[in-house]
Amino acid sequence: MRDFEFKNPTKIIFGKNKIAALAKEVPANARVLILYGGGSIKKNGVYDQVVAALKDHHVEEFGGIEPNPEYETLMKAVRLIREKSINFLLAVGGGSVIDGTKFISAAATHSGDNAWDILEKSIRTEEGKGMPFGAVLTLPATGSEMNSGAVINRSEIKEKRTMGGPGLFPVFSILDPQVIHTLPLRQIQNGITDAFTHVLEQYLTYPAHAYLQDRFAEGILLTLIEVGPRVLKDPTDYEAASNFMWCCTMALNGLIQKGVPTDWATHMIAHELTALYGIDHARTLAIIAPSLYKYKFENKKDKLAQYAERVWGITSGSLEEKAEGAIDQTVSFFHQLEIKTRLSEYTDHYQGTAKIIAKRFEERGWQGLGERRDIKPDDVYQIVEMSY
Amino acid sequence: MRDFEFKNPTKIIFGKNKIAALAKEVPANARVLILYGGGSIKKNGVYDQVVAALKDHHVEEFGGIEPNPEYETLMKAVRLIREKSINFLLAVGGGSVIDGTKFISAAATHSGDNAWDILEKSIRTEEGKGMPFGAVLTLPATGSEMNSGAVINRSEIKEKRTMGGPGLFPVFSILDPQVIHTLPLRQIQNGITDAFTHVLEQYLTYPAHAYLQDRFAEGILLTLIEVGPRVLKDPTDYEAASNFMWCCTMALNGLIQKGVPTDWATHMIAHELTALYGIDHARTLAIIAPSLYKYKFENKKDKLAQYAERVWGITSGSLEEKAEGAIDQTVSFFHQLEIKTRLSEYTDHYQGTAKIIAKRFEERGWQGLGERRDIKPDDVYQIVEMSY
Repeated sequence: MRDFEFKNPTKIIFGKNKIAALAKEVPANARVLILYGGGSIKKNGVYDQVVAALKDHHVEEFGGIEPNPEYETLMKAVRLIREKSINFLLAVGGGSVIDGTKFISAAATHSGDNAWDILEKSIRTEEGKGMPFGAVLTLPATGSEMNSGAVINRSEIKEKRTMGGPGLFPVFSILDPQVIHTLPLRQIQNGITDAFTHVLEQYLTYPAHAYLQDRFAEGILLTLIEVGPRVLKDPTDYEAASNFMWCCTMALNGLIQKGVPTDWATHMIAHELTALYGIDHARTLAIIAPSLYKYKFENKKDKLAQYAERVWGITSGSLEEKAEGAIDQTVSFFHQLEIKTRLSEYTDHYQGTAKIIAKRFEERGWQGLGERRDIKPDDVYQIVEMSY
Repeated sequence: MRDFEFKNPTKIIFGKNKIAALAKEVPANARVLILYGGGSIKKNGVYDQVVAALKDHHVEEFGGIEPNPEYETLMKAVRLIREKSINFLLAVGGGSVIDGTKFISAAATHSGDNAWDILEKSIRTEEGKGMPFGAVLTLPATGSEMNSGAVINRSEIKEKRTMGGPGLFPVFSILDPQVIHTLPLRQIQNGITDAFTHVLEQYLTYPAHAYLQDRFAEGILLTLIEVGPRVLKDPTDYEAASNFMWCCTMALNGLIQKGVPTDWATHMIAHELTALYGIDHARTLAIIAPSLYKYKFENKKDKLAQYAERVWGITSGSLEEKAEGAIDQTVSFFHQLEIKTRLSEYTDHYQGTAKIIAKRFEERGWQGLGERRDIKPDDVYQIVEMSY
C-alpha cells in the first residue's frame, strides 16, 4: 500500500425528504445564492422544497449552469455574488451545477485579477479559503457532492480543465434518492456509467497490495451491476435508487483512491470528445475505456483478471482469457444500460478525431497519462482510433 | 436503506515514518499535552519520534493511562491541563489512550461541576466543544483514531461506560504500520479480533437493502481473514500490516454502520466480563459473539447465510446450514488467531457469571439490546451461560 492522506469533512444527509434540513444546515444569517442548471428543479418539486426550507434566509438565485459548466456563465455568478454580498452558496443540481459552484466558490475568493488562472495555472483552493457552499444533489453520477474537485468548460477555446483543492469540499450535501424517479432515463444511464468508470479508473491499474481498497472498489462495482438495471427498469424502486446514489458518492469521494495508483487516462481522453462533439461525459467514458484497456492490456491484465474473478465471476481460463473476458463483460454492461460504446455511433464525423486529440495533447506538452504515465500522444491516437 | 447522516472530519496521515508530520499538524502556538499509556512508546522509538517532531512546541506529558482507561486517572490529566494551560492534546497509543484522551477533551471543556456526568448522564460533546486533539496510533484495533466515541472504566464501582459526540473526532491521526512489528503478539491477536467483531456488530443483523454497506463490511472481513494470519506470522510484513491497520480504522469510523441496523449486544455483554475479570476487551468479544449468534439465530440467519456465502465461500446446504457454518468458521478464525472462545478458559470462577451480569443489566433498567432491542436480562443470562 502506498502512503496517503485522507480527509473528507463533507456532512452527508441521506434519505427521504431531507431537503427540509437546509433550514438548519445553512447558517442562519447567511446571504445565500442558490445555483442551478436548466430549470428541471422547478418542475420536479426540488426548487419548491429548497425555497420552503430557506424561507427565513436571505436568498438570491442564479440559474442556467450548463451540463458542462461554462467559465463565462460561472463568471456571471461571481459578479452577482459581489453585487449582492453573498456569503454562502447552495448548489441544487447534479455534478455540473456542483462543479460550477466549486469554481464560483474559488473565483469569488480568488485574490488575483484573473479567475481563469485558477484553471490555467491549476491554483488549488486551500482549506478555509473557498466561499462555503452546500449542495442538494438531484442527479447521482459524478460524486462531486462529496469531493473537492471540478471540471470546467471553456467553449470559446474548446478547453475542459480540472480544478480543486481542500477548500472546496461542500460543507454538506443532501441526498434524497427519491429525486431519481424524476430523472430522464438518459441521465440515469449516464450516472451509472459515470460512477462505474470512476471506480475502474482507480482500480484497473496494477496490483499495489491495497487489499481493502480493492475490496471496496469491487463492492461498488458489484452493487452498481446489481442495482443499475433495477433503477433503469423502475426508478421508483427506492432500495435500488438509494444504493445507486450512495455508490456514486463513494465512487469518487477519495476513499478508494487512497494508497493505490490511479489511471484517469480514460477521463483525460474522453473529455476531448465532449469538448469536440458535445457528447455526454459518461458516454465518452464508455467509448474510450474498453479501447484503453485493450491497448494497455499488458499493464492492466493482472487487475483485469482479478476484476474478472471477483466482479464478473469468471473463474476459468488463463489470466489473459479472464482479463479479456472482463473487458467484454464491461462493454456488455454498458450495452445493457443502453450506452453505445463506439464514437461512430455518436457522430458521422469521427474520422480524423484521433489525430485532432493527439495533436492537442502534444501541443499542451503533457508528459504521459495513465497509472504509469506512459500514454503519450501517439498512444492517445491509437486508443481513440480503436474507439471509432 | 435507512436514512442517515455521515460526517467524519478526521485527517488520516498514513504510511511510513509519518510521525514527523506532527511538526506541522499540531498548531504552532499550541500548548500540548502528550498522553500515553504504560510506557511502551519509550521503548519502541515512538516517543522519541514524537518529541523530535514537536521540538519547537511547548510540550507537557501525562503517562499511565490504563488498558481500560480509568476515570480517576483521566481526571488527574484534566487537573494538569488546567494547571499548565494546555490547549491541545496528543494521544500517543492505542484505543485506550485515544479513548481516554476523548474523555479528557470533553471533561476539560465540560461546563458542569461533575465530569462523571458526561458518562453517567451520557452528555454528548457537540462540534467545536471538546478540546482539540490529535493521535499517533501505536496499536491498530479499536478504530478510535477515526471516530468520536470512547469507552471509559471506573473500577471503584465496576462500571464501564460509553461516551462521545461530534466534537470528539481527532483533528488528525497518524498511522504508521511500522509500529505493528514492535507489538506483543497478544495485542496483534486482540486487534484483529476487535476489528473483526466491530464489523460483525454492524453487519450480522437482518437484511436492510443496504447492498453497498454489506459489500464494504464483507470487504473488511475478507481482508482481515487474508492479512490477519500473515501479520501474526510476520509482523514486519508491511503489506499485511498496512492493510490490517487500515481495516481496523474502516471497521469503526462510522461508514459501514450508516443506513443499516446495528447490534452491539456482544460489546455490551462483553464489557461486563472485562469489568468483572479484567479479560482483554477483544477476547471478551470472542467469548460472547458465537453464543449470541446461536441464541439469536432466527433473527440473524439471513445475514449469517449471506456472510457464509460471500465471506467464507460456503455455497452448499440450506440457509440454516450455511448460517451455522458461518458461526463455526468465525470460531475457527478466532482459534486460528490463538484466541480462546470460552469464558472457562480465562477464569476458574466462571460459575455464576451469567446471573451477576443479568442482574446488573436488570438493575440498570436497560430496555433491551441488539438490533431489535429484544435481548432482555433473561436472554443475557442465557447467552453468557452458553459462553462458559
